[in-house]
Amino acid sequence: MLIVMHQDATPEQVAAVVTAIESKGLVARPIPGGHRVAIGVLHNDGSVEAGWFHDLPGVKDAIAVTRPYKLVSRECQPEDTLVRVGNTVIGNGHLTVIAGPCAVESEAQALTIARLVKQAGADLFRGGAFKPRTSPYSFQGLGEEGLKVLARVREETGLPVVTEAMDHEVFDLVEAYADIVQIGTRNMQNFSLLRRAGRSRKPILLKRGMAATIEEWLMAAEYILEGGNPKVILCERGVRTFAHHSRNTLDLSAVPVVRQESHLPILIDPSHAAGRRRQVGPLSRAAVAVGADGIMVEVHHAPDQAMSDGAQSLYPDQFEALCREIRPIFELLRR
Amino acid sequence: MLIVMHQDATPEQVAAVVTAIESKGLVARPIPGGHRVAIGVLHNDGSVEAGWFHDLPGVKDAIAVTRPYKLVSRECQPEDTLVRVGNTVIGNGHLTVIAGPCAVESEAQALTIARLVKQAGADLFRGGAFKPRTSPYSFQGLGEEGLKVLARVREETGLPVVTEAMDHEVFDLVEAYADIVQIGTRNMQNFSLLRRAGRSRKPILLKRGMAATIEEWLMAAEYILEGGNPKVILCERGVRTFAHHSRNTLDLSAVPVVRQESHLPILIDPSHAAGRRRQVGPLSRAAVAVGADGIMVEVHHAPDQAMSDGAQSLYPDQFEALCREIRPIFELLRR
Amino acid sequence: MLIVMHQDATPEQVAAVVTAIESKGLVARPIPGGHRVAIGVLHNDGSVEAGWFHDLPGVKDAIAVTRPYKLVSRECQPEDTLVRVGNTVIGNGHLTVIAGPCAVESEAQALTIARLVKQAGADLFRGGAFKPRTSPYSFQGLGEEGLKVLARVREETGLPVVTEAMDHEVFDLVEAYADIVQIGTRNMQNFSLLRRAGRSRKPILLKRGMAATIEEWLMAAEYILEGGNPKVILCERGVRTFAHHSRNTLDLSAVPVVRQESHLPILIDPSHAAGRRRQVGPLSRAAVAVGADGIMVEVHHAPDQAMSDGAQSLYPDQFEALCREIRPIFELLRR
Amino acid sequence: MLIVMHQDATPEQVAAVVTAIESKGLVARPIPGGHRVAIGVLHNDGSVEAGWFHDLPGVKDAIAVTRPYKLVSRECQPEDTLVRVGNTVIGNGHLTVIAGPCAVESEAQALTIARLVKQAGADLFRGGAFKPRTSPYSFQGLGEEGLKVLARVREETGLPVVTEAMDHEVFDLVEAYADIVQIGTRNMQNFSLLRRAGRSRKPILLKRGMAATIEEWLMAAEYILEGGNPKVILCERGVRTFAHHSRNTLDLSAVPVVRQESHLPILIDPSHAAGRRRQVGPLSRAAVAVGADGIMVEVHHAPDQAMSDGAQSLYPDQFEALCREIRPIFELLRR
Repeated sequence: MLIVMHQDATPEQVAAVVTAIESKGLVARPIPGGHRVAIGVLHNDGSVEAGWFHDLPGVKDAIAVTRPYKLVSRECQPEDTLVRVGNTVIGNGHLTVIAGPCAVESEAQALTIARLVKQAGADLFRGGAFKPRTSPYSFQGLGEEGLKVLARVREETGLPVVTEAMDHEVFDLVEAYADIVQIGTRNMQNFSLLRRAGRSRKPILLKRGMAATIEEWLMAAEYILEGGNPKVILCERGVRTFAHHSRNTLDLSAVPVVRQESHLPILIDPSHAAGRRRQVGPLSRAAVAVGADGIMVEVHHAPDQAMSDGAQSLYPDQFEALCREIRPIFELLRR
Repeated sequence: MLIVMHQDATPEQVAAVVTAIESKGLVARPIPGGHRVAIGVLHNDGSVEAGWFHDLPGVKDAIAVTRPYKLVSRECQPEDTLVRVGNTVIGNGHLTVIAGPCAVESEAQALTIARLVKQAGADLFRGGAFKPRTSPYSFQGLGEEGLKVLARVREETGLPVVTEAMDHEVFDLVEAYADIVQIGTRNMQNFSLLRRAGRSRKPILLKRGMAATIEEWLMAAEYILEGGNPKVILCERGVRTFAHHSRNTLDLSAVPVVRQESHLPILIDPSHAAGRRRQVGPLSRAAVAVGADGIMVEVHHAPDQAMSDGAQSLYPDQFEALCREIRPIFELLRR
Repeated sequence: MLIVMHQDATPEQVAAVVTAIESKGLVARPIPGGHRVAIGVLHNDGSVEAGWFHDLPGVKDAIAVTRPYKLVSRECQPEDTLVRVGNTVIGNGHLTVIAGPCAVESEAQALTIARLVKQAGADLFRGGAFKPRTSPYSFQGLGEEGLKVLARVREETGLPVVTEAMDHEVFDLVEAYADIVQIGTRNMQNFSLLRRAGRSRKPILLKRGMAATIEEWLMAAEYILEGGNPKVILCERGVRTFAHHSRNTLDLSAVPVVRQESHLPILIDPSHAAGRRRQVGPLSRAAVAVGADGIMVEVHHAPDQAMSDGAQSLYPDQFEALCREIRPIFELLRR
Repeated sequence: MLIVMHQDATPEQVAAVVTAIESKGLVARPIPGGHRVAIGVLHNDGSVEAGWFHDLPGVKDAIAVTRPYKLVSRECQPEDTLVRVGNTVIGNGHLTVIAGPCAVESEAQALTIARLVKQAGADLFRGGAFKPRTSPYSFQGLGEEGLKVLARVREETGLPVVTEAMDHEVFDLVEAYADIVQIGTRNMQNFSLLRRAGRSRKPILLKRGMAATIEEWLMAAEYILEGGNPKVILCERGVRTFAHHSRNTLDLSAVPVVRQESHLPILIDPSHAAGRRRQVGPLSRAAVAVGADGIMVEVHHAPDQAMSDGAQSLYPDQFEALCREIRPIFELLRR
């Protein structure tokens, strides 16, 4: 951290700030400058925040300098994390495609869609059994019944399955059935849930909160790693902005930034970012081109009868066309 | 809902949209216009979303018309909800001041602060026992020990206490000790927690999510009312924007809008919005002037030794000055 | 500025950064730390940006430390700037109320409204002669004819007039008629216009851009002061966020921050922030309570016939009620 | 437009709204519904805004239904606009690469870079002669001298040149030298400048404002087309959000949306969106993959000596690698 003093700060004020820093067990290093003094704060492990110093007399600003995350950082682990699921590997050098309906509606629906997406080239199947819904009056998912359908899908098709655990009560249940447990955007800072995920042996797909900075997102992942589970897959799904032509604004610059800061794999969910089917194809191509490790898209065999998110679900032939488009882009980048 | 057709939509396309609407059990009412046809959708209880229609041939747009919330709306209940807690009433005609530290750190700390804020005029005491923290390495609260301290504070000072339940596992515990249970900004769409709150007999203080629209916030409250608990108090605490001179941007226009749309009382938390002590006084005055039912502010007897959020906590004399400033503004408005 | 090196940066990399800093004519001061080295950059007058250093080998981050503005800062001028216009003073210790229609539509309209707002207590009259409109098909203002009407209003009522100059071609014209020249939100970074305003002897009312940080806003003011015109009045009018219950989100925390950073007076325009009449009264009260030097509101004697912004214009009796509400709040704060 | 009435609106209130609509010369069509009445407003050419109706008794909401733009819309012109510049065509079926330094610094600098980017495959050269700068103390460009350098670059290399006109005073000058005149992000709603561009015969590259909706951006283009100049090229360059890991958040979903709404070509500027060199390559690939008509990137032969934006400028070999990456992606999409 760096404490910047006012131009007219007195030597006594500087000394008082130094004392305050040292009272926290840290080391203060004043830097006399051209116009003003700054004071470097050393040996801070992140527990002392900039705000502590803002209102001391003579202080103009206090600026955090180092990142607060540790285990998720590339400084801690330079090589990429690879996550193995069934016969699939998520991470550097593979393009992972996760596809399926927003919600599991019935065994027939799930199996129909799973067979279609498998044939088109999907590596994993997604489908919600417990659905977080803005309205209490909307369809909330089939619950454990939906998990059983997912297990049946895996059995039939061989595709590993990804599904969401909405709270840590149902985490046990979801963990028992799923190959990858998803933590959704609204739960990115549900710290109880993150701690539970840290005790799991299943890989966790952690969606970015819809107004989360990358730092906060990596700190959420840090909770899981710190809890003992290193298998975290990040998933960007759009952030909330003033723009309303898409449901959220897909932030593809997150990919090169996460790559640089962290060793964790990162996927893109264009379906929830767009909220409209027409944008999903173009954004999927862009996701692959920007260097993501894969995509997660919603597909439904009859979107206009889907019980949720029909408007953003691809038709099977659109999904097939999408897979044909993105594979060669990925191949180009690997050369 | 209103479906807007393209200028060159054919009569067949219009007919197909009408059929699609009717297949959902709704009523379609076409409105031939100057340049294009629009189709009104009637008897929609909110379960059919605009997205359903976006991609039908000839459709240019589908626009939601009515609000999805019911029980929280003024259309449903015209008169203001009043929430009684101890000897205090939160709601129309009262100015409620909730004050206390970010976190309960010890009995001595809590009692010291509680006595100070009571004397200055606070109506309720706040203090976190379970703390949601961005970093797993930060202080996480005293847990049940903190709840016991809060009970002791109430006993000693007579002030009802407000504290946060971070997940529905600890809700039972928090509910047993607290007079008002807070649901924090990161949990505004933790639907399991909202459902648990709906089964509680304690009033719920529901903070706005940091990127939540007012509609989403009211829908979160709807979960609680729909579950059977009518005692919800809303609390605006700043939204996330590009601006960085305050931690979040306090959205005071939420107050007149919530007043118009809903019968629920609304408080303002300027401390978390600002993140800096210096802005708390001015924003508190503004909160009262805009017509809020009260404020919730962080106060600490020794902010520079606080275990969290010290930078935004008022010194006791600042809090006292604040109370002296806001009461007359509130009196002016009541005339 | 502070350059933060990677944990594993080599001494050679540190030396190379020092050389790069010195090659810009600046002074480098390395700060060996616990985990990593940081390098302070001294004597930077703002011309060297953090970006310069981001990609040098071994550099993790480069952080701007000091503010880039000079003349507008309190460090440069500790005492408040007061702006005198006619018999009115804008600045510390006065509550300035500027009122009038969005656009001057006719002499009859302007005079009618001016007499009404004067009687209710307005200090200045506002009205657009040149209107920036999103659509080329919307009413664009009366042009010079409108300016003549404003002059007539001043003559008749004694109220100084505020009106906008949309570009520097018409600045001469506007300057000849107006008592205060407004630079609108869309022009906050129209640097040609700012330079022209810097050469003017008339006070400039500078609205905040709808996505401008306070730093950028103060830098825009810096252009005017640097050009030779010290009479700048800042005006916050809402920023663009994801929220859509108001047209923009009024950022009242700008008031205490501007007060601390700068000596310039600051007004609030609740009409454009809200975009809806019902929010204007509450937000005006909040503006005064937060400590602004005044407000600028739109008033029309027949809003439903206004040629622009009718929905946000107050009826005369609403404006009168507003004035009765805000004066006592302001008096309370002065005590 | 659609006016939605309160559930308990009286027939008299409905009748009054109908009268109000008709008084504007529009046609009102009431739609009796299940719970409430709505009223369609027909024959509105965009001049009557929703706000007009918000506060009439019994009105709950007024919702704009149709887009306000005309000439730029696909409904008006179904086929894509192609813009010819020298031997190059911008628009459907071509991948346009514009490259060059942020600012023209000298003839030697510009020629050096122009030759490098031409060899790597650039179609046009960019370079600022008049620079909009946040600070009055930053380098403001060479002015007309810079334009002469650009003319010399074109002569030497055959590359058409793109440069910005910051205000309509210098538009004449810029127009005389440039092949494409750029209107920058801060000037997107500088309506005087847009009107001047509408009278030009040169193609206009119109950057999206940093907080502009797509509708506002298209309306800005509408000003130019309405003025008589059909040669507009849109350029997305990132929008302002809470995220700070990139300077702005590149909104690639704008590409499919603009494609659907408008016939104008659209380019992407990843350099200004990112603000950091490392993100430019990945975002350029994504821009091509999402379906843009081309990119505009900053390249400098010695970025660490650049007089502005050095941190986001590519080194020549990075630009060359970029061109090698994006061409095959574009070819894949064309198949």
